[in-house]
Amino acid sequence: MLEVHRARPGDELVVGLVNDRTGIGTVTALDASALCMDVRFDRDPPAALPVTLVLALPRPKVLRRVIHSATSLGVKRLVLLNAFRVEKSYWSSPVLAPEALLQEMVAGLEQAKDTVLPEVLLRPLFKPFVEDELPGMSQDSLRLVAHPGADSAFPRELAGRVTLAVGPEGGFIPYELGKLSNSGFSQVHFGTRILSVETAVTALLTRLMP
Amino acid sequence: MLEVHRARPGDELVVGLVNDRTGIGTVTALDASALCMDVRFDRDPPAALPVTLVLALPRPKVLRRVIHSATSLGVKRLVLLNAFRVEKSYWSSPVLAPEALLQEMVAGLEQAKDTVLPEVLLRPLFKPFVEDELPGMSQDSLRLVAHPGADSAFPRELAGRVTLAVGPEGGFIPYELGKLSNSGFSQVHFGTRILSVETAVTALLTRLMP
Repeated sequence: MLEVHRARPGDELVVGLVNDRTGIGTVTALDASALCMDVRFDRDPPAALPVTLVLALPRPKVLRRVIHSATSLGVKRLVLLNAFRVEKSYWSSPVLAPEALLQEMVAGLEQAKDTVLPEVLLRPLFKPFVEDELPGMSQDSLRLVAHPGADSAFPRELAGRVTLAVGPEGGFIPYELGKLSNSGFSQVHFGTRILSVETAVTALLTRLMP
Repeated sequence: MLEVHRARPGDELVVGLVNDRTGIGTVTALDASALCMDVRFDRDPPAALPVTLVLALPRPKVLRRVIHSATSLGVKRLVLLNAFRVEKSYWSSPVLAPEALLQEMVAGLEQAKDTVLPEVLLRPLFKPFVEDELPGMSQDSLRLVAHPGADSAFPRELAGRVTLAVGPEGGFIPYELGKLSNSGFSQVHFGTRILSVETAVTALLTRLMP
């Protein structure tokens, strides 16, 4: 507050309660040890994006940016999934520690003036997740897997819930696409350009926005 | 080729000539000193995105990622512009050296299997660029400036050319918005969520895709 906002008594700042409402805080006193604000929480946070993102675990640097951007775009459930082309070492990255995930999510919420933390699920076993857990998790939603070369184009402006699976760099392998297909996922492409995971996630989520 | 692709004689690889066609190369011989391929260039590169992106210079790390993503999405002209909220030090970043810009652009082209290099223009003076150069550069295009709080929503799926201005973190200041307005730019918002520059650029470009 002192260094970034350079706040002084009388300044108004956007405030929010985690998983609750947002509003304005007026600074009444501030020094190196304490901050006093008059706060009122009179606004709802922005609408969530009704998309569950099932993402093959990307490399740690990319993961941090994807969590930030997906959170800022309003995703409230993110599943990090293993896949054949995911490097095993990624699963031992410190970025997957709960406090590290929380830090990126909070940064994404602050960016978008949102307060509702996403849920992040780690699923290091592809087959049991896709066969046993994903069908129930994705029921009552449109199930899509982004795959270059699919016959159908990625849809736009969906009204209802979507569960979107995005593969690793290099894509899901045919076995994985088959398992996703068995669980009700349709393959859709996003044009002829192959995108990096982080660009693809933002592009696909944007395409689903109302 | 040896380390990343682990190519061997007989392997087929996607190849492209800079600013020209793409195709397939078949490896005929390969060792640590030389590569021989039979190449045929029988495909056009993917269609360009008919958008000129006028971007307030972001911090160097973000700039690298934005050049990569904008190039992979098919942007062929990028103007890096000064603005009040752009830190002066960004203009002396080594990322702005021609060879550094080229490296990011080539990486973005490779990602999307494109060959046509974008043009990058550096414009460290806001007023003369927006007053004297931008009107001519943007003629025959729809002129948009992304600005949170604008009255009109960002359009979708545009058929014609677009010139899109994106401000720095914190936005263009009113003086700058006024100058852009005088040069024919309409302010459009992208929902209630404020996005980081890199997420915003991908989201806005995606929204403009046919």
